[in-house]
Amino acid sequence: MSFEVHILGCGSALLTSMRNQSAQVVKVQNRQFLIDCGEGTQVQLRNQKIRMQNIKHIFISHLHGDHYFGLPGLLSTFHLLGRENEIHLYGPAELKGLIYSLLKASNTYLNYDLHFHPLNFKSPELLFEDKSVEVHSFPMRHSVDTCGFVIKEKPKLRKINRTATDAYEIPVFELNSIKEGKDFVTEDGQVIANEKLTFAPDASRSYAYCSDTSYYPQLCDSIQNVDLLYHEATFGNDQEKLAKKTKHSTAKHAALIAKQAGVKQLVIGHYSARYTDLNVLLNEAKVEFENTLLADDGLKISL
Amino acid sequence: MSFEVHILGCGSALLTSMRNQSAQVVKVQNRQFLIDCGEGTQVQLRNQKIRMQNIKHIFISHLHGDHYFGLPGLLSTFHLLGRENEIHLYGPAELKGLIYSLLKASNTYLNYDLHFHPLNFKSPELLFEDKSVEVHSFPMRHSVDTCGFVIKEKPKLRKINRTATDAYEIPVFELNSIKEGKDFVTEDGQVIANEKLTFAPDASRSYAYCSDTSYYPQLCDSIQNVDLLYHEATFGNDQEKLAKKTKHSTAKHAALIAKQAGVKQLVIGHYSARYTDLNVLLNEAKVEFENTLLADDGLKISL
Repeated sequence: MSFEVHILGCGSALLTSMRNQSAQVVKVQNRQFLIDCGEGTQVQLRNQKIRMQNIKHIFISHLHGDHYFGLPGLLSTFHLLGRENEIHLYGPAELKGLIYSLLKASNTYLNYDLHFHPLNFKSPELLFEDKSVEVHSFPMRHSVDTCGFVIKEKPKLRKINRTATDAYEIPVFELNSIKEGKDFVTEDGQVIANEKLTFAPDASRSYAYCSDTSYYPQLCDSIQNVDLLYHEATFGNDQEKLAKKTKHSTAKHAALIAKQAGVKQLVIGHYSARYTDLNVLLNEAKVEFENTLLADDGLKISL
Repeated sequence: MSFEVHILGCGSALLTSMRNQSAQVVKVQNRQFLIDCGEGTQVQLRNQKIRMQNIKHIFISHLHGDHYFGLPGLLSTFHLLGRENEIHLYGPAELKGLIYSLLKASNTYLNYDLHFHPLNFKSPELLFEDKSVEVHSFPMRHSVDTCGFVIKEKPKLRKINRTATDAYEIPVFELNSIKEGKDFVTEDGQVIANEKLTFAPDASRSYAYCSDTSYYPQLCDSIQNVDLLYHEATFGNDQEKLAKKTKHSTAKHAALIAKQAGVKQLVIGHYSARYTDLNVLLNEAKVEFENTLLADDGLKISL
């Protein structure tokens, strides 16, 4: 079952011809979540051959243009393509009014339902769940209200030890409850412990997205032990003052968060246009957290 | 002196990976006018190596997203690049509120002056003029209020016939008034007709932009005899009903307008994504108006 982070854009506010602005698609099994939607995201969705009509949930971290100026165009394109399936949009409360003003100005009445869910910038919140996946938001610290997001698989079913279940002649209709952890009782009353009949379940994977934020260790509570953390690293150590002033992080900050939260892997992005050699940022991060990699537009990371 | 139309995008509402959305830069001598600003225009400005900070006047024809969803990002980029020179923005009255709402949501206070000029959709209007160029708007017929634009050089000065002015020993300080068409009076009272001293001025060039509009012959009054007309040709003859319904033009309509307005050359664009072979549209236009060419992203046409 797939869990893949597909980065569409990892540039920052000043658009360059080298990098797209913030956007990524997280595919979890058959779901496609879009996180942030900078200008040009719909072009990137096409270029990266992502079936955009499979996106049903869109999460906008904050209202700086490089994180959502592609959203009006994407929502219009869904409409023009005849979409009928609903979209759930999660973002700052003002986003709803902005989108509807733009649609009204163009006399557009969407032929699909757009459900808007305002974000809460005070405390972590469960935004979405279904039988196997949850998405939570958590507040970060930036120059405008901003949330991070964490996407987690729920605990999975134990895996049947076929040899054992065959040996005990366990009927097929019992297998689901055994996957859920129940013991099996034979016709003569013998209790077979679940551990004898199953293997441990596959690990539940998790991914966290933190962009944009100043160095904010409190967010570690929300992203503890995730398999992969995307954390902004707009600047290097050379621009620590500017990072503080603009409420962004350095690569070192990102790595400190990764270390403190005990994540397995860190991917940094949201690079300032001033860095042409991104290894500067990578090396600064690796000092604190070795398992770091550089985001790139088009990069896919499977968990 | 240059007069060049540089097409950045000639696709229509449904964005494809083949074509950018409506935007073009018209360079007249040292001026750069931006007409329409679909999503991704700032990327196209970079890719086409156009000095974006030289743009001082932006004209938005109407509030369908494919004609202006790139504007908020471009205005933000001007700001991030430290622009201090003012921008004059001409567009439908609602555009001002939309732009300011987006800027407010991101807590952005532009470090340059943005002067907004609402368009008039009732009658042609002079929007801008300086010593040598004029820009006029004129109403078109579309599903929302829409204007076309015409950019014209003012009449130019006559050109000095150096051999004649030398022969009459005309002093240098008289040459400007002679260029303006005055006769010369010699010391002994002899009147030398201006035609003997000058050649006819270079022709004043003109360009008209018509997108989006249904077939609307009344607009010919505003674009009479222009050197180049860009006219939308969203559809071919096969989709005449759809053209009527969506208030767009066919290639044939564009050509009929070109013929009726007596323009020198027609360039068609704003193609529906359904046409992969644009020669269909070109050939249909050429039946009515031979001197037609197909717009393409990146195409530059010098007048």
